[in-house]
Amino acid sequence: MLTYNLDKSNAAPLYEQLYSSIRNDIISGVIDGDTRLPSKREFAEHLGVSKVTVENAYSLLISEGYVYSLPKKGYYAESGLQAPLRTYNDPTQTDVLSSESKTFRIDLSANNVPEKQFPFDTWIRMMRKVCLDYGKELLNPIPFNGTPYLRSVLCKYLFEERGMKVHPSQIFIGAGSEYLYYMIIKFFGNDMVYSAENPGYQKIREIYRQNGVTVKDIDIDTEGPSMQILRSINPNVFHFSPSHNFPSGSVTSPRRRNEILKWANEKDGRYIIEDDFDSELRFSGRPVSTLFSACSNENIIYLNTFSKTIAPSVRVAYMVLPAALAGKMNSCFKGNSCSVSSFDQYTLAAFIEGGYFERHISRTKKYYGRLRDELLYVFEKHRPALDAVLYEGEAGLHFSVSFNDKKRLSAVKKTFEQNNIGVSFTGDYYSGEFSEDENRIFINYSGLSAGDFDEVLTLMEGAK
Amino acid sequence: MLTYNLDKSNAAPLYEQLYSSIRNDIISGVIDGDTRLPSKREFAEHLGVSKVTVENAYSLLISEGYVYSLPKKGYYAESGLQAPLRTYNDPTQTDVLSSESKTFRIDLSANNVPEKQFPFDTWIRMMRKVCLDYGKELLNPIPFNGTPYLRSVLCKYLFEERGMKVHPSQIFIGAGSEYLYYMIIKFFGNDMVYSAENPGYQKIREIYRQNGVTVKDIDIDTEGPSMQILRSINPNVFHFSPSHNFPSGSVTSPRRRNEILKWANEKDGRYIIEDDFDSELRFSGRPVSTLFSACSNENIIYLNTFSKTIAPSVRVAYMVLPAALAGKMNSCFKGNSCSVSSFDQYTLAAFIEGGYFERHISRTKKYYGRLRDELLYVFEKHRPALDAVLYEGEAGLHFSVSFNDKKRLSAVKKTFEQNNIGVSFTGDYYSGEFSEDENRIFINYSGLSAGDFDEVLTLMEGAK
Repeated sequence: MLTYNLDKSNAAPLYEQLYSSIRNDIISGVIDGDTRLPSKREFAEHLGVSKVTVENAYSLLISEGYVYSLPKKGYYAESGLQAPLRTYNDPTQTDVLSSESKTFRIDLSANNVPEKQFPFDTWIRMMRKVCLDYGKELLNPIPFNGTPYLRSVLCKYLFEERGMKVHPSQIFIGAGSEYLYYMIIKFFGNDMVYSAENPGYQKIREIYRQNGVTVKDIDIDTEGPSMQILRSINPNVFHFSPSHNFPSGSVTSPRRRNEILKWANEKDGRYIIEDDFDSELRFSGRPVSTLFSACSNENIIYLNTFSKTIAPSVRVAYMVLPAALAGKMNSCFKGNSCSVSSFDQYTLAAFIEGGYFERHISRTKKYYGRLRDELLYVFEKHRPALDAVLYEGEAGLHFSVSFNDKKRLSAVKKTFEQNNIGVSFTGDYYSGEFSEDENRIFINYSGLSAGDFDEVLTLMEGAK
Repeated sequence: MLTYNLDKSNAAPLYEQLYSSIRNDIISGVIDGDTRLPSKREFAEHLGVSKVTVENAYSLLISEGYVYSLPKKGYYAESGLQAPLRTYNDPTQTDVLSSESKTFRIDLSANNVPEKQFPFDTWIRMMRKVCLDYGKELLNPIPFNGTPYLRSVLCKYLFEERGMKVHPSQIFIGAGSEYLYYMIIKFFGNDMVYSAENPGYQKIREIYRQNGVTVKDIDIDTEGPSMQILRSINPNVFHFSPSHNFPSGSVTSPRRRNEILKWANEKDGRYIIEDDFDSELRFSGRPVSTLFSACSNENIIYLNTFSKTIAPSVRVAYMVLPAALAGKMNSCFKGNSCSVSSFDQYTLAAFIEGGYFERHISRTKKYYGRLRDELLYVFEKHRPALDAVLYEGEAGLHFSVSFNDKKRLSAVKKTFEQNNIGVSFTGDYYSGEFSEDENRIFINYSGLSAGDFDEVLTLMEGAK
């Protein structure tokens, strides 16, 4: 009879030890296929274990298909089970992504939120509150377009802050802007002509490209997207940010906005994606009103996110669709799952509804306003030696710097590399032809301290 | 000079009232394009407000492009600003999604988690803990493949629970299984041949279809996916669940697993997506070991989710890639954002690391085991009158019922409709030909009470 040494001091229960031993013997061929195994009672006695132990081991072997039973006959080993050769490389010692998250000593390119700015206590309090108030709902499947609670809170918010009158059913919640871009492409299909601003976030182009769509560039002039180029391309879907071009920080002029709306309304099948990604963080004036509310036709999709206003790690974005499109999109995707956890949606909704989001925005603006002033003061000290100009946008947490002596830029690039300073350049956001003379150093100051900026500027001074 | 009645008792600040008044007059043509506006000092005196009020209004008008300034000359209204006709329909009264979230009196088809089962207190405690421990990291952008903390906790979990030896860099976190399917398709491209089990989740097919891919059916026989069909289609990507076919609940036999692995290893460019969606909730035996760890070649992608083990509203799923594929996928998508909030990732990681997930699973299994027994007892009472057979799977929170008199099924369908009982049928999960005689009532019992089941069975008895 089969004999195994089962070890009671072993962490694995006896039935599991027995199961593995028999399984290994079947796989390795020690027990041939169709061999009868000992009866439970005999085997238990033989091994000095309880009958239940053998029963458990057998039932596990049966459920996994290593053993079969014949009524009134007994238990038999399955045949044809010899496993393919196991040469699996144990990768526990190798990190396949050696490039993973390179960290810079000072990073001028990343969007970092200062820890002190985030109201963790309030966030946890909201979370506890929604767990108490909505326990059951929190666990149920979420409609594809998001929880009704967050959608209705957003409606109120959009009306109060952006003058937009929309119904909760026009709102779609998604796990970040990139996810929404993907939904839009999936909805409109790959055959449409897509356009985006140039310069602009390269990421937008990249996401479109990944989804099988080529984005045609609409160059920006002093007033906004060039009408001439827009009219020569005549895209079906034009993705742009009227209230804040990135990286220039400029606002599309009201005249140009009207021209663009006029263009969109001239013909069916022309849609504008109004990417309003950081309208809340403007430093001069108040947020520019939205195209969505200015347009009479049903061809503007409004997009916003909490990446900038809360943190890039909070993956919640939303879009507002004209009623007709919202209905169509819903019938397209209603079987899909929502991509944002209900816990996040409810907590965020309570955060906005309680007025904490508004307070957070106003505190954040004050904080960044002070930081901006501090950094500008630091720059002013260095300006004569640098012989450089600093450009501030009206919106966004960044500015750009250009040297009067254009040749210095490459020296600065080198110095930054040598000193492990993360940086991007305005030229990085252009596609197509770009004159290096117009290139500027792009500085995202969201996570920058005055001391670090001073250090960076001193390095820049030394780069010649 | 322009005259406006500014109202100090109005909630809007004076500068905003002045801003809106001038803006409206420019848009409506009361102020012609290129008209010079009063100087700030004059205007302030004229209106009886401070110079700062006028300054703020002007700077807002300039930032929005309604006004331009000429150095040493003054402020001028922009030209060409007349707005397009505003006939925007106010949709606040209409819900465009009238089909939104239809609710059933009793729903036998939905996956619902009983509120009492979820350890809300522990979850909130974990959340507070990670906010204290990781405040700064929580706010920073997350690597595309997920936070290192959750990925390393999952490695330990996979090793202990599923015997899988993997490195954190092989793991990719995404907002639900559907998101991961999408990433897989984006990675492999639309030109590959994709297959899935038949029967199976229709949602899998639907997601593939939405992403521009047709899924070819591999029919299931008593041992698992048919080798004959698999070998005639020879897909590049075969999506299947060896440890639990849905809706049958059956486990692919070890022999068939080996045949499938052998097939996959015969030729380059054959990949298996091992969808292990509820291996944790098995009621007989312990979880079947994974194909991933049985395979010597780098062609298995392992997929799992927390939808079933925690709740469908917690949008966290993950996949484990062979090292080479993980490296490739990372270079493809490293610029993308992760789709799961860092708050969720850290909280979940702490929940697993603290042993609470394991405890939750074991409590959940006990709960569902008891519920299952209760429901089976209720069924037994009704069985003679129903003249029906109940089928239990080895895994999953569902069973199916068929009548000995095949004609009764359509009567039951009708009764369910009349009584607002949500239900699906096993035939719903088949594509292609399907004999109605083999159709069964499919019962997801995750949210079902014994009382409700009794009511449903009584209704079924009455349906003839």
